[in-house]
Amino acid sequence: MLVPLLSLSLPQSPPPNIVFIVSDDAGYGDFGFTGSLQIKTPNIDSIANEGVEFTQGYVSGPVCSPSRAGFLTGRYQSRFGHEDNLAIGEVQPGDQREDIGLPVEERTIADYMKAQGYTTGLVGKWHLGEEDKFLPKSRGFDEYWFLPGGSRPYFDQKVGKAMAIQSNYDPEPKVTYTTDDFGAQAAGFITRNAKKPFFLYLSYTAPHTPLTPKPEDEEEFAYITDNRRRKYCGLMKGLDRSVGVVLDALKTNKLDQNTLVIFINDNGGQIQAGAVNAPYRGMKGTFLEGGTRIAYAMKWPGKIKAGMKFDGRVSTLDILPTALGAASQGKSYEVAKPFDGVDLMPYLAQSKSGDPHETLYWRMGFTGAVRDGDWKLIRMPDRPPMLYNIKQDPQEMNNRFAENPNLVANLFKKLFAWEKDMIYPRWNTAPVWYQDNAQRYDRDGLLTQPPGKPGL
Amino acid sequence: MLVPLLSLSLPQSPPPNIVFIVSDDAGYGDFGFTGSLQIKTPNIDSIANEGVEFTQGYVSGPVCSPSRAGFLTGRYQSRFGHEDNLAIGEVQPGDQREDIGLPVEERTIADYMKAQGYTTGLVGKWHLGEEDKFLPKSRGFDEYWFLPGGSRPYFDQKVGKAMAIQSNYDPEPKVTYTTDDFGAQAAGFITRNAKKPFFLYLSYTAPHTPLTPKPEDEEEFAYITDNRRRKYCGLMKGLDRSVGVVLDALKTNKLDQNTLVIFINDNGGQIQAGAVNAPYRGMKGTFLEGGTRIAYAMKWPGKIKAGMKFDGRVSTLDILPTALGAASQGKSYEVAKPFDGVDLMPYLAQSKSGDPHETLYWRMGFTGAVRDGDWKLIRMPDRPPMLYNIKQDPQEMNNRFAENPNLVANLFKKLFAWEKDMIYPRWNTAPVWYQDNAQRYDRDGLLTQPPGKPGL
Repeated sequence: MLVPLLSLSLPQSPPPNIVFIVSDDAGYGDFGFTGSLQIKTPNIDSIANEGVEFTQGYVSGPVCSPSRAGFLTGRYQSRFGHEDNLAIGEVQPGDQREDIGLPVEERTIADYMKAQGYTTGLVGKWHLGEEDKFLPKSRGFDEYWFLPGGSRPYFDQKVGKAMAIQSNYDPEPKVTYTTDDFGAQAAGFITRNAKKPFFLYLSYTAPHTPLTPKPEDEEEFAYITDNRRRKYCGLMKGLDRSVGVVLDALKTNKLDQNTLVIFINDNGGQIQAGAVNAPYRGMKGTFLEGGTRIAYAMKWPGKIKAGMKFDGRVSTLDILPTALGAASQGKSYEVAKPFDGVDLMPYLAQSKSGDPHETLYWRMGFTGAVRDGDWKLIRMPDRPPMLYNIKQDPQEMNNRFAENPNLVANLFKKLFAWEKDMIYPRWNTAPVWYQDNAQRYDRDGLLTQPPGKPGL
Repeated sequence: MLVPLLSLSLPQSPPPNIVFIVSDDAGYGDFGFTGSLQIKTPNIDSIANEGVEFTQGYVSGPVCSPSRAGFLTGRYQSRFGHEDNLAIGEVQPGDQREDIGLPVEERTIADYMKAQGYTTGLVGKWHLGEEDKFLPKSRGFDEYWFLPGGSRPYFDQKVGKAMAIQSNYDPEPKVTYTTDDFGAQAAGFITRNAKKPFFLYLSYTAPHTPLTPKPEDEEEFAYITDNRRRKYCGLMKGLDRSVGVVLDALKTNKLDQNTLVIFINDNGGQIQAGAVNAPYRGMKGTFLEGGTRIAYAMKWPGKIKAGMKFDGRVSTLDILPTALGAASQGKSYEVAKPFDGVDLMPYLAQSKSGDPHETLYWRMGFTGAVRDGDWKLIRMPDRPPMLYNIKQDPQEMNNRFAENPNLVANLFKKLFAWEKDMIYPRWNTAPVWYQDNAQRYDRDGLLTQPPGKPGL
């Protein structure tokens, strides 16, 4: 499919570099720019402050692998059955290890950027399949320093194949403290490729478990008595420091003006690992706001006005079309399969108005959700449906299902009509996760206000 | 697991033969004994009249293959992921043809009967996998004359492998009119094995589509102007004639007194193929009564009182434990994996009282249901939940969901707790069937009264 864009007399500046930074399992309220009173994240905040903060930014999946399958393809991951998490070893009978990964028929953001002449790089966590055919080398990445799996120890230790760092430019990858290592590798990629347009996907494991920050990163939080929260805060501190190294590398190489930097967290915070999704209810794994609304910011000096807050509904599915739009500079490009995301730049430039997405959809296993305008319906396997007015009740405290039967019926129809174009999950994690996932809807409401010093 | 039974001084009569007869897609109200005013089924009726009619008999799956996976194992088929229909060629991306069939880890009723020293036979439709490992020869059957797939033309014509008759005793199986052929083969099996205990699974394709009865079987219904209904009635007439041949073979061989004959239909009738599920609403594929409550009768002279009506909730999952109980004559037997069904004989002999099943569960794809006491909750992907009081409202016309929030919450919990022990479907039919399945809940209510002459 060719997407013809308006080819006006655009300035012939070089195409922007793109640095796409993802944190892992961070709480919504655990960044400075999203309101944390405990955790300072000046470097990550600078992306929002020098650009735009999306106050209604949603991931397409509430857990790591599906969320990544969505934002790396720009397509609802249920279209290609990448719906359940990718927890090899915990899959159910009948699922074949060799089938489990981002289906090879899908093109990634790296494939698209490469087609634009970009040098593409991956640093950090992959979590989209461990078989050869699923690995970054087959998915459009020129350079990589990454782990195939979903998490690993932060410090150097003997680990299995899914956790061991692989690289095609570093013959003996050494781990000191992964969060710092990823920052250093990202800075190295930027410096090596400074002379031509590049796309970097920097995918931290922080602050995902294990809760083992650098000891010195914990010190600032010594007043926090909750062990998990204190260590989690230490992981966040390391994350922000590492992002600072990357932003500095852009400045040092004089690339900060012509680089689109995108920051997101991959899904709702894991409450039991110390994350705080305040002011939202719910957590990773749920379709409550605390599971799907995430810290989301972009900066691109001169193109995105500094200090913007964009309140329309956006998705991480928009990242690929936005990056591709920026890279193609108004020229048409080929799209292998239609995106569900949209290019956000026209909205940020105010040449388009309204919400980029009137309706957003989610499905994982038997659980589904639809956000349509201000309303959200959550369809559960273990309890009656939930209906919330997100504008009036962003904390989802007041289930208005019973009083709105027609609206509910329409939202069910809308969700199901969307599912017409989806396929069933290609694999499933073990049934225990199906149960666990539902229980997560009850682990909520505790932390709807950001904790302040003296904290938890 | 050893099941010790009371070993009282039981009479040393020879163990009973077991003839298990299944029709395919017949409407609930399309038998004489279930109230048809159009279709006469004197032979099938004789099973109910000389034994027991179950007025609340349920299948465990609302379509062919899952229902069979349930009653042939005595276990909820979702325990082993045999949840969606088996429509090879219509499966979705990622599903492997060689994985699609009744999982080989499960033991069938034929395996259990063989372990009791029975000669086991299959005549008719299989529909539990087409790969070698899934076929009857690997699933406990000594003799067979069958088609691997789910349906086939009634008359002789060139057909593919899934439809072609395979037999291990008939080197050149010939089809004249399958419904008659199956009766003749069943009678032959009975005659050949008359001297020792046998188990026969006689699985008709009638009255499943294609709607091509013998022309002479249609004549009685010439007054019916609806083409499909008329032809469907013709198929039912042939079915009953064929069952008569089998019952006659038992008499001719003087086996009718010591044979347990079980008759069921495999799932709700296919309305658009002319079936009538009166007095119930719904159809094949749904968890409404019209999709799951089926014609169900047993006779065993001297053991089951003639003319009984049993109104408790029973399941086709009970057939295996009942047959095995009868075959073992009070001796203990080994059970490879626990049954969800129960031996119905103690209830029929009134040594046990109450309902054999206080609670019954169903799941197919995203749709689920639970019948608990008089109440049934249906959990749908495309509409709000449905709650019916089956005792007061057997036609399910009055959704009482809104007025019973606590009951609904409890039924959701109960259904979900059951799902803890299930696995995800091992395969799925193409998404179009997922949509079609939901739409079937709207194709209802037309035929809640049995049509009489002059009929439709």
